[in-house]
Amino acid sequence: MPSGRLRPAPENFLDGDGIRAVVDEAKQGRRDFVRHAFAAALAGGAAAATAQPASAGDPNILNLPEHSQGLGQPVAAEGYGKPSKYEANVQRRPSPGLTQTTQASVSFAPLQSLFGIVTPSGLHFERHHQGWWDIDPSKHRLMINGSDDSLLKKPLVFTMDELMRLPSVSRFHFIECGANTGMEWGNVAVPTCQYTHGMLSCSEFTGVPLRVLFDLCGVDYKRARYVLAEGADGSSMTRTVPMELVESGEVFVAYGQNGEMLRPEQGYPLRLVVPGVQGVSWVKYLRRLEVGDQPYGTKDETVHYIDLMPGGLHRQYTSTQECKSVVTTPSGGQVLLDKGYYQISGLAWSGRGKVKRVDVTTDGGRNWRTARLQDPVMSKCLTRFTLDWQWDGKPALIQSRAMDETGYVQPSTRQLRAVRGTRSIYHNNAIQSWLVEESGEVRNVQLS
Amino acid sequence: MPSGRLRPAPENFLDGDGIRAVVDEAKQGRRDFVRHAFAAALAGGAAAATAQPASAGDPNILNLPEHSQGLGQPVAAEGYGKPSKYEANVQRRPSPGLTQTTQASVSFAPLQSLFGIVTPSGLHFERHHQGWWDIDPSKHRLMINGSDDSLLKKPLVFTMDELMRLPSVSRFHFIECGANTGMEWGNVAVPTCQYTHGMLSCSEFTGVPLRVLFDLCGVDYKRARYVLAEGADGSSMTRTVPMELVESGEVFVAYGQNGEMLRPEQGYPLRLVVPGVQGVSWVKYLRRLEVGDQPYGTKDETVHYIDLMPGGLHRQYTSTQECKSVVTTPSGGQVLLDKGYYQISGLAWSGRGKVKRVDVTTDGGRNWRTARLQDPVMSKCLTRFTLDWQWDGKPALIQSRAMDETGYVQPSTRQLRAVRGTRSIYHNNAIQSWLVEESGEVRNVQLS
Repeated sequence: MPSGRLRPAPENFLDGDGIRAVVDEAKQGRRDFVRHAFAAALAGGAAAATAQPASAGDPNILNLPEHSQGLGQPVAAEGYGKPSKYEANVQRRPSPGLTQTTQASVSFAPLQSLFGIVTPSGLHFERHHQGWWDIDPSKHRLMINGSDDSLLKKPLVFTMDELMRLPSVSRFHFIECGANTGMEWGNVAVPTCQYTHGMLSCSEFTGVPLRVLFDLCGVDYKRARYVLAEGADGSSMTRTVPMELVESGEVFVAYGQNGEMLRPEQGYPLRLVVPGVQGVSWVKYLRRLEVGDQPYGTKDETVHYIDLMPGGLHRQYTSTQECKSVVTTPSGGQVLLDKGYYQISGLAWSGRGKVKRVDVTTDGGRNWRTARLQDPVMSKCLTRFTLDWQWDGKPALIQSRAMDETGYVQPSTRQLRAVRGTRSIYHNNAIQSWLVEESGEVRNVQLS
Repeated sequence: MPSGRLRPAPENFLDGDGIRAVVDEAKQGRRDFVRHAFAAALAGGAAAATAQPASAGDPNILNLPEHSQGLGQPVAAEGYGKPSKYEANVQRRPSPGLTQTTQASVSFAPLQSLFGIVTPSGLHFERHHQGWWDIDPSKHRLMINGSDDSLLKKPLVFTMDELMRLPSVSRFHFIECGANTGMEWGNVAVPTCQYTHGMLSCSEFTGVPLRVLFDLCGVDYKRARYVLAEGADGSSMTRTVPMELVESGEVFVAYGQNGEMLRPEQGYPLRLVVPGVQGVSWVKYLRRLEVGDQPYGTKDETVHYIDLMPGGLHRQYTSTQECKSVVTTPSGGQVLLDKGYYQISGLAWSGRGKVKRVDVTTDGGRNWRTARLQDPVMSKCLTRFTLDWQWDGKPALIQSRAMDETGYVQPSTRQLRAVRGTRSIYHNNAIQSWLVEESGEVRNVQLS
């Protein structure tokens, strides 16, 4: 977005990696990277210092543009609304080469371009194990059975219509892939927030508490302490969910997301919602639930989504997403032009409950200030935080550190590696570091 | 959505108006009307009564469908996600003949198909005065000036980049057109909730508090008690906003909606957000704000959006949306097949603060029960309520009555008409009545 005070070409703001990144992004038709550079660039000094005096005149006001004179577009007779053509750059993006096929892969949400806590369903991150499907809801079924008839009196098969008539709840929750920020384990400093933390999204989900369904089936809660969730897609995704999460009333089978039916990439017409637990347990295209008296130890919990420890041991059943946060503005790839005022903004979340506090440092941890938390602060949901900052033009190291209501504090990379080593893929909730250079360029840096 | 226990053709469930409505809707490619009829129809008895025993077998489980065997669709390389093709029927819809042109018209949100409180931006109701535009944000400006230099020290013109760098807030608020439910004034019982209450939506908006901008301009709050907001579209929409709403910190200029930039139909790139106030004051394509020492009395507040009283007097400056609610399921056009259990679900809101309580009657007001309110309950935001109901198969008159935190109680149609008459168009917040007939058909009825 050109502006009087700015040089027009993105190249002017970036060198080396920056230019290459912009070029790469441009190849994918991306503009927000640049637009946000402009936005950040303009965030210098008080508004009065950059906003033009009205007397300077403004074409939109003095010379009426077409949209101030003509007849615009009609209301929608049919059709589903789309974003502005000027926002076409704000998209989910895969990481070429990260996976061998694009069906068993990931597409990251553009966190650096988003506001608030709700992720637009059209930009929700994707993680598929054998590709996504648009399943006919009139043919889809959910079967509930027991590993042993004594654990569940009455096995049942539900149609979508039958599920949608039952008592429902609507709740805001984040969903994060257990592998989110995984590339950071190996000192691979990926350039932008979209790629470091973009396997994270947040929605208002609507569905039927699992407890309601299990009561209808006559589950013996004393003995049936585990639930197996199975998906209908070709990957036959199966995960074990502890019964106490069901008994707490938090787990539900969702058909609604952000006010409408689930999107096909998110498991339409039915997915499991397990608040606070890594995304892989939120089984998509949910077709079967089985209750049992012991963990199922499926491939996706014993071979995948486990943590390789320094000693070579495997850390398993670590499915709760620990407290974590990330600054989204300014973040990697953005550029600050002037000294002066910036609003630092970011996201914090915890799989254990509510975010209690977020501290932010701009000097690599020598000094921390407590950020403002935007209402509402909800349990197992994203929380947006903001902080005022005056940049003095010198190199700055920006980090955020979240604490949840249990008192757990997000660890530094060093603290996390001291326990977990560097050979892991999953469950990296370390503090993220963004380096603002004197040039104003923001880079992802790894602190060993 | 066909199902074993249901007759396949919608005609079988409806007669007269019902059939005509379905046919009309079908012409517009609409299915949810029918699908929800099925869903409601199945909502009889306990789930166990209709859910099939697992032994009955299930094609999705016994005979693997294609999606359980093949490789699905890849993750998005680019592009913005869309709803399932099976949801194509869930759309905003205009009311043919309601307005003379489709540019100065309305398209209603499908409330009867939505869940929770967030309205998907692609289904947000539309109200345009001269059509919508997709304005280039790099060319858009916001000018702030005073009607008199003594009221504002420093007039400023802001670019979008300059606005987006300033301190921001993200808040969930409903927006309702002052004319919502207007057709009900004249005993015109429109068939569905989409047409009775569909000029209502709710989003998470993000932007800069007006107070921040006014402080930068050096507004004299003692004398500048009114704000004129002006849009950049051809209608030159202008509305007066009292300064106390700005001083409260609630009013802001929004660029973000549901996590992304505003949609063009909603005023991209900038609109005013005036929580609790009717939609026309949320000026879209916002290009100018002027502070003054008296109300501006523009055409859109003196000639339009005023209430014609029984005596012929005009009731003006009634821009706050009073406490209101509506049951969305079951609602007009839906059909219940069996006796038994249903979850009644609906929306409640107030322009004066939080919804405190919602009572629901199924016998036309002889008995009222208090509904469950879904968290979070936020100020000047939609609140979702639910209530369990056992239908005995006899005619039932369903109504909801909301109360807000000020103690204000939503009036009956009779109470409202006793004061306001029937010649009004705007500000109808009366209790809505849905009649469930013995056939199970749900109709909108007017109680005089």
